Amino acid sequence: MSRTHARTKPQSEVEARAALMRAADVGDALMGRLISQHGAQQAVEAIRARTLPSEFIAREAQQERPQDLTSRLHTWYARLAAANPAADLKAGQSSGARLIIPGDAEWPTQLDQLGPSRPLGLWVHGNADLRFSCLKSVAVVGARAATPYGSYVAAEFGVGLSESGWTVVSGGAYGVDGAAHKGALAAGSPTVVVLACGVDICYPSDHESLFTSVKEQGVVISECPPGVHPTRARFLIRNRLIAALSRGTVVVEAAIRSGALNTATHALSLNRHLGALPGPITSAMSAGCHRLLRERKAVCVTSSDDMIDLVGVMGDDLAPQIRAPAVPRDRLNEPTKRVLDAVPARGGAGPASIAVAAGVSLDAALSALGGLAAAGYIERTPKGWRLRKQTTAYRKAPDSAALEPPPTPEPDPTDTPPFPDDFPDLDYDHPQPHEPHNVP
Amino acid sequence: MSRTHARTKPQSEVEARAALMRAADVGDALMGRLISQHGAQQAVEAIRARTLPSEFIAREAQQERPQDLTSRLHTWYARLAAANPAADLKAGQSSGARLIIPGDAEWPTQLDQLGPSRPLGLWVHGNADLRFSCLKSVAVVGARAATPYGSYVAAEFGVGLSESGWTVVSGGAYGVDGAAHKGALAAGSPTVVVLACGVDICYPSDHESLFTSVKEQGVVISECPPGVHPTRARFLIRNRLIAALSRGTVVVEAAIRSGALNTATHALSLNRHLGALPGPITSAMSAGCHRLLRERKAVCVTSSDDMIDLVGVMGDDLAPQIRAPAVPRDRLNEPTKRVLDAVPARGGAGPASIAVAAGVSLDAALSALGGLAAAGYIERTPKGWRLRKQTTAYRKAPDSAALEPPPTPEPDPTDTPPFPDDFPDLDYDHPQPHEPHNVP
Repeated sequence: MSRTHARTKPQSEVEARAALMRAADVGDALMGRLISQHGAQQAVEAIRARTLPSEFIAREAQQERPQDLTSRLHTWYARLAAANPAADLKAGQSSGARLIIPGDAEWPTQLDQLGPSRPLGLWVHGNADLRFSCLKSVAVVGARAATPYGSYVAAEFGVGLSESGWTVVSGGAYGVDGAAHKGALAAGSPTVVVLACGVDICYPSDHESLFTSVKEQGVVISECPPGVHPTRARFLIRNRLIAALSRGTVVVEAAIRSGALNTATHALSLNRHLGALPGPITSAMSAGCHRLLRERKAVCVTSSDDMIDLVGVMGDDLAPQIRAPAVPRDRLNEPTKRVLDAVPARGGAGPASIAVAAGVSLDAALSALGGLAAAGYIERTPKGWRLRKQTTAYRKAPDSAALEPPPTPEPDPTDTPPFPDDFPDLDYDHPQPHEPHNVP
Repeated sequence: MSRTHARTKPQSEVEARAALMRAADVGDALMGRLISQHGAQQAVEAIRARTLPSEFIAREAQQERPQDLTSRLHTWYARLAAANPAADLKAGQSSGARLIIPGDAEWPTQLDQLGPSRPLGLWVHGNADLRFSCLKSVAVVGARAATPYGSYVAAEFGVGLSESGWTVVSGGAYGVDGAAHKGALAAGSPTVVVLACGVDICYPSDHESLFTSVKEQGVVISECPPGVHPTRARFLIRNRLIAALSRGTVVVEAAIRSGALNTATHALSLNRHLGALPGPITSAMSAGCHRLLRERKAVCVTSSDDMIDLVGVMGDDLAPQIRAPAVPRDRLNEPTKRVLDAVPARGGAGPASIAVAAGVSLDAALSALGGLAAAGYIERTPKGWRLRKQTTAYRKAPDSAALEPPPTPEPDPTDTPPFPDDFPDLDYDHPQPHEPHNVP
């Protein structure tokens, strides 16, 4: 499962960063600034010498909230003393993983947007190319304690995104994360698991076989050195990577208090797209999503197509517009509809009173009545015109949404009347049998 | 059940409008303009004389889409000839209803925003005062073919809005409408049913007892004369009244093709507030709501409080902020949390290595360890400090949302550590038992 990659940086640089990944906490912006100003190797020397470069100290003094450099240096020093980067590299590589650092061909440059809190390096384990996999990627995140609804939808999104050529990025946790990864794997696509522990640690342990499949088809990555176990802090800091790697994040299920909302916050602060999935208002696991929607921080996303529409190239990845079902009555022109409305269901009415009720001329009424009779909407009785029995029968059983009135003006009225068979639409507002509208 | 009201207009004016309500279709803007320019009585005379005022004809010629005045006049004339306004007023009043017209004390002036398509008059049946009832009102609309979820939520909204002193306005139909009205009645509040037929017609017939209760507690209203039956056109035009009477409209359930969306469109065009209720993306009856949310036409509303927050007086009717449950760990200060994270679950670690792992000074680590031990988070063993057994036990069973990490920075860290009993939060990210972070 091991995979070689173009190493553009000298081994010394790699070892220096491996050492600093031990010295600093993940997302340590102070270390980030030290490296960006003086390089990894000089940073290592400075820490070992317990003296930070004076220019660095001067610059830090101008920071908004200057930090206690002495204590930080002490912490770095103590950890560096205990660190063994060569052993780390050996351990990682023997486990089949590789350490990539900024400047490497596989480095996902979108992480540079994280500034000084950009990872010092990333341990990558798997057959896919991380950078390539994340070019078109979506983060699917949500509660570990997902409901069956949440797990189902997460898997659907995993499949849907993958089938459209998008990579699913998530945290490999229970619930939404795992379901999304599994959906992506089922669709035969690479998927990216971002861990809050070393890539050689299987956390949660129940996901061992999942992670094995991911390493085959995608990658498991982490900014933690081998052997490091997860902590709360690392989970929260890990979330910034999930948001930063992908073009957009969709929150599938989240309680009001949820780590997924932390990822959402990172996505927004990185100006990435944010989608939220609606659910029943009776479900506490959707309350976080609904708050994101209510506060207009997230776009309402109801399918993977919706999400692709959001993150995709404008016009290139548009979600298919949902269309309302057309019903036969749409195909009647306006005066004919008015005449049909004026025909009683019981008894009968003459063309003249129907014309008055419909507000059309007698000629118009006569021709419309002819057409409606031909199409089987109405029938002539000794008492005059009335709706056909089967129509009245239909009216007793309203049930489908298709029976409701169109929200928009009626479609092209030039069509011809339909056959009587597909008729349920007359159902709409299933009125009582009625007489013409004149008062008695 | 009959109710007298201050009639400020002469009977002749009332009879004239009653006659014109027969002559014109509901929402007939042409008739509206004729009346606004020449008054109802002159309009009646003009129609009877089959000659429209020349100024009116001249003005109409300048309309964007001038209408065929001759055919309209013919229709009005024919219907007026068949009309008997005195009989209408008698029939309505004997049934217990009253006809109110613009200028009456009970007239809801917010309808004037409808311009020329404002109703010519309104038949009102019930003990409540229409104008007063609608001062603080919300339209609760949705599918007739509501799901159990939709009906449940509609009833909840009916109760919630009423208990907060808001009147529910709806169409009295099956499904969402009926459930909302029933919820309002259950809360002992007036509610307003806007019919698309005469107030003496019970449509749908199964709602006879509902309408009877509404007339006791609220009002049933219609712009149709007595005896008039519903038609598709009247339902769509009726919807503008529901939107115009209320301060805002909430769509509880709506398929992509739904009359409720037609009401939503009216609400938007009248610049009233629009809310939509989320539901499962797997439910076709929520697709219309989700589209409104996705297109940002509606605000996501998950409770009657949310809706009141939307339509209410700024700052006066704010919805209570949902709070995340606070968990014990929140009450630990930052260094103490870091130390707790660095204490292994199995084996044990000395203060020095814990201090290095946590990135705090030895003194800070020692005091934090003391506090954590006192609070029962950790215990001292021959091998050093480790998490208390019960804690480790907790870690095996992750299930509740409250166990997830906070989306926001931790609360006030000055609090004292809590008792060990309420401890589930240590569950968050339930890690494997782990050793300190130094490599072996």
